[in-house]
Amino acid sequence: MTAAQYIGNKSFQLVESLAIEPKADEVQLNVGYVGICGTDMHIYHGLMDQRVAPPQVIGHEVSGTIEKLGSDVQGFNIGDRVVVRPLDYCNNCPACDSGHSHICHHLKFMGIDTPGAFQSRWTVKARTLHRLPKAVSLQQGALIEPLAVACHDIARAGLSAGEKAVVIGGGPIGQLVALVAQSVGAEVMISEVNDGRRQFAESNGILTVDPINENIEERVASWSDNKGADVVFEVSGVQAAIDTMTKIAAVRGRICMVAIHTQKPEVDLFQFFWKELQLLGARVYEAADFEQAIALVDEGRINLEPFISQVSALQDINSAFSGMANNPQGMKALLHCESA
Amino acid sequence: MTAAQYIGNKSFQLVESLAIEPKADEVQLNVGYVGICGTDMHIYHGLMDQRVAPPQVIGHEVSGTIEKLGSDVQGFNIGDRVVVRPLDYCNNCPACDSGHSHICHHLKFMGIDTPGAFQSRWTVKARTLHRLPKAVSLQQGALIEPLAVACHDIARAGLSAGEKAVVIGGGPIGQLVALVAQSVGAEVMISEVNDGRRQFAESNGILTVDPINENIEERVASWSDNKGADVVFEVSGVQAAIDTMTKIAAVRGRICMVAIHTQKPEVDLFQFFWKELQLLGARVYEAADFEQAIALVDEGRINLEPFISQVSALQDINSAFSGMANNPQGMKALLHCESA
Repeated sequence: MTAAQYIGNKSFQLVESLAIEPKADEVQLNVGYVGICGTDMHIYHGLMDQRVAPPQVIGHEVSGTIEKLGSDVQGFNIGDRVVVRPLDYCNNCPACDSGHSHICHHLKFMGIDTPGAFQSRWTVKARTLHRLPKAVSLQQGALIEPLAVACHDIARAGLSAGEKAVVIGGGPIGQLVALVAQSVGAEVMISEVNDGRRQFAESNGILTVDPINENIEERVASWSDNKGADVVFEVSGVQAAIDTMTKIAAVRGRICMVAIHTQKPEVDLFQFFWKELQLLGARVYEAADFEQAIALVDEGRINLEPFISQVSALQDINSAFSGMANNPQGMKALLHCESA
Repeated sequence: MTAAQYIGNKSFQLVESLAIEPKADEVQLNVGYVGICGTDMHIYHGLMDQRVAPPQVIGHEVSGTIEKLGSDVQGFNIGDRVVVRPLDYCNNCPACDSGHSHICHHLKFMGIDTPGAFQSRWTVKARTLHRLPKAVSLQQGALIEPLAVACHDIARAGLSAGEKAVVIGGGPIGQLVALVAQSVGAEVMISEVNDGRRQFAESNGILTVDPINENIEERVASWSDNKGADVVFEVSGVQAAIDTMTKIAAVRGRICMVAIHTQKPEVDLFQFFWKELQLLGARVYEAADFEQAIALVDEGRINLEPFISQVSALQDINSAFSGMANNPQGMKALLHCESA
């Protein structure tokens, strides 16, 4: 089988190797499609070389078909179409003990901390699997993982029907957060600097605001009858968004921190006091988020097709990554890893 | 009657004037005791001259006896011993409409934005009153307001029995937060740099940590069996506490922002993402917080007597304020405003 190894310096090498036989609690997947995540782009740009260990197979937005079953695996059959919730947790720490295994103290994120999915066979624990219904294609399946991120964000924020939500940042996750917010009956506005991304949001029926050329505070105030946003999702990772989020949130508004801020931004904590704001960190997903994401696509309530900007063969992984690096409007590139 | 007017430049002047007759929905109080709050000290130091309008009577931690009743006031009688919840809200804004009148868009804080209690008669709306039971003295009554702040903080944080809470900052509010936390069955540790304040906490049976000379992260880790604090109350207002709060909080820990940060501190938002932390701003109190505070004292579950560092006559307001300014260990100075 073929595996694409990240070898540093914005490069992958293709290697031929034997597929790993599944242990008793594992399955071997014939990998279908694997999406390129923003995190994969960070790895590609060398920003996570302390965490990954080149040469390493990365990739974690994956769909596939079960090729082999470990001896103890129940509830799945060879040929089942599945997606992977790429979290490996310890089940033996205060977080796992509290029911929060998705943020386990010793969490290994598959495809970053352990080998990933950019290969034609991937062997994973059966507990990571979620079954795909017939109506959900393997291509859509590769986007279930980012959609589950969005479902988790909505759940963390406790967003409910009739509330007004502003999503700061219109990348793939921000757009998916907006669609899930719509699906629960909220009214949504995306703040995004890029014209193409605003057009993408508008084509999905979502209001947009250009925070450079418009006054976002005034837009949100008039939209909300001077109440402010019930919920703000910070999905951009920039200081300007941190400055904006506390201004546009309503009294008792919730701010969901989706973005990864590797620098410590300055935060207007006075506004947290003054308006009794709430900040909720949100990381990855839980099993229920995957089930919700699959159901939203299965029921036709969210259409993932427009998110697929490009599909390449695994063999073209280097050009797929360089293409994404040069396409700020691109939503999601998939690599087709399936082999006969 | 006598009123003490703040006239700027760390000074009050005593003036004789006529008491204000109560309107239909108001009562006139024979003021008993009024505490000096940290906010009053800020005003005294000239830090809030943009908000107060000298010459102005300030003061808002108050107990008293009803002297006169407006014509429409129901449920109270002349001679009733009461405390004042010093919030004047509009009942006609998105916050009030959402049931959050305590953080009304147009909230007037009585004693800051409108005349306060450092006078022998104070005329206030009857809706601000809470009755004092017999077991609660007028001196203790003057501390119900800060105790209600602490009750509100505990409620905002959702602190529950068996949880571990760290209070950063051992001033009067921090100490009261710790006592209310104890009262709900939580285990509490106060982080405080001042020896005398740590001793005060310990005399109330509260664990303490010296964040200068001890490693607070290690202390909290060993105390919590490596889980971290379920809840952190930030009551200090300094950058060092902001750095500490995200380190010592458990996965899914809640951080309650009680302090007023007038500068924007740098906040480790990555930890909010990584541990799915929650930040909850808490401001003033609701009616239920006053009722809880009164009940805690009435039932003997919290003893406010040790908090009373000093009692002075209203006529000695200047020396009372300068005394507090020079006494970092002092908890609460009261001014006796009652007149025959």
